Amino acid sequence: MSKGAETRDTILARAMDLGSTVGLVGLTIGELAKQVGMSKSGLYAHFNSKEDLQRSVLEAAAAHFTARVLRPAIQAPRGEPRVRALFDRWMAWSSTDLKGGCLFITASIEFDDRDTVVRSYVKRRVQETQQVIARAAEIAVEEGHFDAQLDVGSFAFEFWGILLSFHNYSRLLDDASAREKALGALEALILRARPST
Amino acid sequence: MSKGAETRDTILARAMDLGSTVGLVGLTIGELAKQVGMSKSGLYAHFNSKEDLQRSVLEAAAAHFTARVLRPAIQAPRGEPRVRALFDRWMAWSSTDLKGGCLFITASIEFDDRDTVVRSYVKRRVQETQQVIARAAEIAVEEGHFDAQLDVGSFAFEFWGILLSFHNYSRLLDDASAREKALGALEALILRARPST
Repeated sequence: MSKGAETRDTILARAMDLGSTVGLVGLTIGELAKQVGMSKSGLYAHFNSKEDLQRSVLEAAAAHFTARVLRPAIQAPRGEPRVRALFDRWMAWSSTDLKGGCLFITASIEFDDRDTVVRSYVKRRVQETQQVIARAAEIAVEEGHFDAQLDVGSFAFEFWGILLSFHNYSRLLDDASAREKALGALEALILRARPST
Repeated sequence: MSKGAETRDTILARAMDLGSTVGLVGLTIGELAKQVGMSKSGLYAHFNSKEDLQRSVLEAAAAHFTARVLRPAIQAPRGEPRVRALFDRWMAWSSTDLKGGCLFITASIEFDDRDTVVRSYVKRRVQETQQVIARAAEIAVEEGHFDAQLDVGSFAFEFWGILLSFHNYSRLLDDASAREKALGALEALILRARPST
């Protein structure tokens, strides 16, 4: 890796942590430059604009998400075990991998009403994540773990809701039972998805 | 109402719409002054600091939430009808009342990792909302609509998750079936809460 690429990676790692805490709107080139010990103009040599920085941070976070959540979850056996692995990996990623939790949840809220290229990027990534969840549920149907009548789109919607609520209960409300509540909700969702006997 | 209070209300109404769109971090005194046709110093006469403005916007949004969601929902009969009324009112409030959707969801994400007085305020308000949901479920237990064994805290957690997912699907993903998915998820949650026969 070239020195330039290395520096860029260092900046992005710091920017991910900072962005997860203060948000991508609150992430300023000035503050980031201070934290990595560079001048603002030095930082501008790597990112042309704030929008370019926001987009690059999200790309780095997406790569991290793939490596830490998606790729390991796909190692789990097809069907219900893989659905559970996705959930567990996501909880771990949101709880411990980034200082301020999932950057895409933050960006979802920050950019949902802003018509920018960043919004399009966030939208596409969150859509892809919903498709991954729906596909995992579909495989569980194929394996006979879930009912053939299951609406996998609705399954993904509810799965996502549990994760969003977990994020809110654990990060904002400091609720010690957030994890237990989330796991209980997942159990109920899976139970409903199974074939009726 | 004095002229000063009236001006303040006008500013806050504009700030709520703007804040729901760009977030409270993105809400600047400069942009707000431009939108209400005042000078920045004129605006500073009403709010001492950006934090004071953020806090005032949230207080105004909370009063609006009470008037548009809580008070009408409490008119519904005790028990399951009131739980449903809370959900319906909240969906309407988030969809149409504010340009950019629920300001507290936005603020939840923006401030969850910032240690400020605004965070404490948001936390307290979201906690109160969870208590209102849990209390509505508890009344449904008292009325015999819901099972005596129901964990009302978990019920509130899941209820909240459906609303968060609805917010995300409708605002970021522009998913036309968001409403239908949310109502389906609520039905399933209520069905599980009912006494087992």
